[in-house]
Amino acid sequence: MRTKIKEILTSDQVNYSVIVKGWVRSFRNNQFIAINDGSCMDSVQAVIDLDTDEQLIRKIGNGAAVSVEGTVIPSQGKGQKVEIKVTKLEVLGECPGDEYPLQLKNRPSLEFLREKAHLRFRTNTFGAVFRVRHSLAFAIHEFFQKRGFVYMHTPIITASDAEGAGEMFRVSTLPFDNPPRNEDGSVNFEEDFFGKSTNLTVSGQLEAELAAMALGEVYTFGPTFRAENSNTARHLAEFWMVEPEVAFNTLKENMDLAEDFIKYVIRFALEHNRADLEFLATRLIDEEKQKPQQERSEMGLIEKLEFVANNDFERITYTEAISILLQSPHYKKKKFEYEVSWGIDMQSEHERYLVEKHFKKPVIVTNYPKSIKAFYMRQDDNCEAGKETVAAMDILAPGIGEIVGGSQREERLDKLEQRMKEMHIPTEEMYWYLDTRRFGTAPHAGFGLGFERLVLFVTGMTNIRDVIPFPRTPKNAEF
Amino acid sequence: MRTKIKEILTSDQVNYSVIVKGWVRSFRNNQFIAINDGSCMDSVQAVIDLDTDEQLIRKIGNGAAVSVEGTVIPSQGKGQKVEIKVTKLEVLGECPGDEYPLQLKNRPSLEFLREKAHLRFRTNTFGAVFRVRHSLAFAIHEFFQKRGFVYMHTPIITASDAEGAGEMFRVSTLPFDNPPRNEDGSVNFEEDFFGKSTNLTVSGQLEAELAAMALGEVYTFGPTFRAENSNTARHLAEFWMVEPEVAFNTLKENMDLAEDFIKYVIRFALEHNRADLEFLATRLIDEEKQKPQQERSEMGLIEKLEFVANNDFERITYTEAISILLQSPHYKKKKFEYEVSWGIDMQSEHERYLVEKHFKKPVIVTNYPKSIKAFYMRQDDNCEAGKETVAAMDILAPGIGEIVGGSQREERLDKLEQRMKEMHIPTEEMYWYLDTRRFGTAPHAGFGLGFERLVLFVTGMTNIRDVIPFPRTPKNAEF
Repeated sequence: MRTKIKEILTSDQVNYSVIVKGWVRSFRNNQFIAINDGSCMDSVQAVIDLDTDEQLIRKIGNGAAVSVEGTVIPSQGKGQKVEIKVTKLEVLGECPGDEYPLQLKNRPSLEFLREKAHLRFRTNTFGAVFRVRHSLAFAIHEFFQKRGFVYMHTPIITASDAEGAGEMFRVSTLPFDNPPRNEDGSVNFEEDFFGKSTNLTVSGQLEAELAAMALGEVYTFGPTFRAENSNTARHLAEFWMVEPEVAFNTLKENMDLAEDFIKYVIRFALEHNRADLEFLATRLIDEEKQKPQQERSEMGLIEKLEFVANNDFERITYTEAISILLQSPHYKKKKFEYEVSWGIDMQSEHERYLVEKHFKKPVIVTNYPKSIKAFYMRQDDNCEAGKETVAAMDILAPGIGEIVGGSQREERLDKLEQRMKEMHIPTEEMYWYLDTRRFGTAPHAGFGLGFERLVLFVTGMTNIRDVIPFPRTPKNAEF
Repeated sequence: MRTKIKEILTSDQVNYSVIVKGWVRSFRNNQFIAINDGSCMDSVQAVIDLDTDEQLIRKIGNGAAVSVEGTVIPSQGKGQKVEIKVTKLEVLGECPGDEYPLQLKNRPSLEFLREKAHLRFRTNTFGAVFRVRHSLAFAIHEFFQKRGFVYMHTPIITASDAEGAGEMFRVSTLPFDNPPRNEDGSVNFEEDFFGKSTNLTVSGQLEAELAAMALGEVYTFGPTFRAENSNTARHLAEFWMVEPEVAFNTLKENMDLAEDFIKYVIRFALEHNRADLEFLATRLIDEEKQKPQQERSEMGLIEKLEFVANNDFERITYTEAISILLQSPHYKKKKFEYEVSWGIDMQSEHERYLVEKHFKKPVIVTNYPKSIKAFYMRQDDNCEAGKETVAAMDILAPGIGEIVGGSQREERLDKLEQRMKEMHIPTEEMYWYLDTRRFGTAPHAGFGLGFERLVLFVTGMTNIRDVIPFPRTPKNAEF
């Protein structure tokens, strides 16, 4: 039975036998092997006898897989409490240094490692990123489990394209070369696998609402898709979303849930991934050294996470947000590129000003203009004419921008139907969604969190391609 | 703040104030409202004053959403320990009985409810099924979290189609009506979103292997797809798979992991969903009453789950399995429809005989013929010529058949490349997979579990369409 390195390094025991298996991270003086097995950030030092067979020694290169048997003893050297005095060493798989892509004199760049995504798990940075990603995912499930939510798998392939959240990918088994056609020459999707035209989902919200109206509290956590040609550090064509939906919740309770949720998962990572986060914090400082002083983060990574976990998020209405922007020195000095006035869809520069300059903490903006938001959001009562708003909420995070978007949903059948007609959403096709308002409707609310944006925020990475194992972006579906 | 019905029914306290919100399951004598909020199987009885406003009473139909305030008191009637003496009642959403699809005199059939999948969450059966499904999903994450595995999201959209696990769905943004073409008339996929032809994944295993060879122990839990025109009670076009992959594990350790895993998640459901499983057990008995005696289950649902959780799985080689079949009375009486001989891909009737008649427990069959298994399975050493086997394992469960398929992987580069060439799998395109064998290769093993088959097994449902919220099958992608 192998012992995991994490166990050895976190134990206070010494003088016991172990078998350790892992990969060589360094080999010094023909004597000291640093072995990492992925269970934690740190490697364990294995000390081999100087008399070890020379032929064997030649096989111990960086990246080689090894198995060592020996005794855990207090370390003679600096930098570690314990080390393994090796009695038996086996090289399971060699790693020819002249061919190994990670065998570089200089530290490989993140861009280079993206091209080698199949191997980047082996670096300190990506080991840390994917262990943190894991912890955040588990924390999400644990948070909802503790509160009695039901995890729900909403469909990935969908014939519904009503939400209009973005461009969609078509899913089909028809032959592209020569698809069956109708008499008028159009493609006959009745012959397709599902008997109609189908796409990859952009959100599980509408289906989650159906379940929430019976099971009470549900959440989704699954992949969603956007076929948008955005080659930015913030966009993926395939990404994971978390979408809780709660019967009887109002906008206020929705905000409370979202804030508790974000704090919970951040605390979980701080508690379970301290060494990973400390490594990533140092990485971020190094990266920022290349930036001018005023663009560097004011807080270190861990300091930032602790600040967010331990302080209330600011809550303001959209109307208040616009007013803050209009009164800002930034606006008066004409430093905003885009217009500021009631009714605009705030740009990234506006959101960043609110979060990073004005409040210096996460901000929940509520009650946005109806005209810039989705059909299913609950229309606010008693609005001034021309200033109609909806019970929407966006959470804006420092350095990331929008991390959560949510709303109380329109539960009133007449208002919902009216709004769908205004927005040219086919009410007949959407009968199943409207049925929840016909039969035992009730107030309810939910939100969506882009999982990769959360991972970006917590790891301090700056390109979203670096927080998902195999990113899908325009012209890229490698591995 | 609303109190959830589960809390009220599992508490020993009485004489405290609550607000309860949920949906009416029944309304008797203009006085007793059974309210369900999805938090548990059972409804709570709310007792209203006989003098309550008649107009209000008319609105309290089955399916209506209500909010009641009152006091939890010891129940006067039979069937429940406590009930709510209502001081305030509000109907949040009516449910017009003449239009409501679930308002039926007779219990609606499962087939009927499949057509109304957006409302079936509101029935006892589907409430129970989806709460159990949730618990199983959570138990999966908890099992791996406790063991230090890293949860990994493998890509859904993939350009790799090498595994050959089945027919695939194409993903594209090219216009079907008039796609861009090459000079030879073929469709020019370089113009497609990803710059090449892409499909929906059939498995995350190959990518999970990449991560396991650095992080040590990983698992996936995500949707996978098969574009097969199978309209059976066991097949879905879109289903969820769990795929653990562990560096340094052998076939034996792989079996131990899979057996521990299945027992863990079953015990979790037995512990957390007792009332749901008791309801489903009764449902199953009712369903089986329509079958001839000899086709009925020998054990009740809960008895079966406890048996599986508490007994060792049988472990036999494929060669032993064939020998048992050949020596069986069943074979001698010529009752098998399909041939039995070394080398066959066992049919469902063979697997069911082993599991349900011979061993009467789950069976792990190992070391299958190389010729009927995938290229990545480790070739057994020292095989008799013409009887070459691989380190594969399938777990067969009573009533379900194959629930897990796994193997130790071929870690030897030369043997793997050779096998890929024999099976016409392009080694150049798969360089990234082969790189794990080039650089620090090591023994490793993993398996895949079809999540919906597990849910079928645990809930005792018999059609796989009834254990996923919105099933995708040929000609069906509703909701």
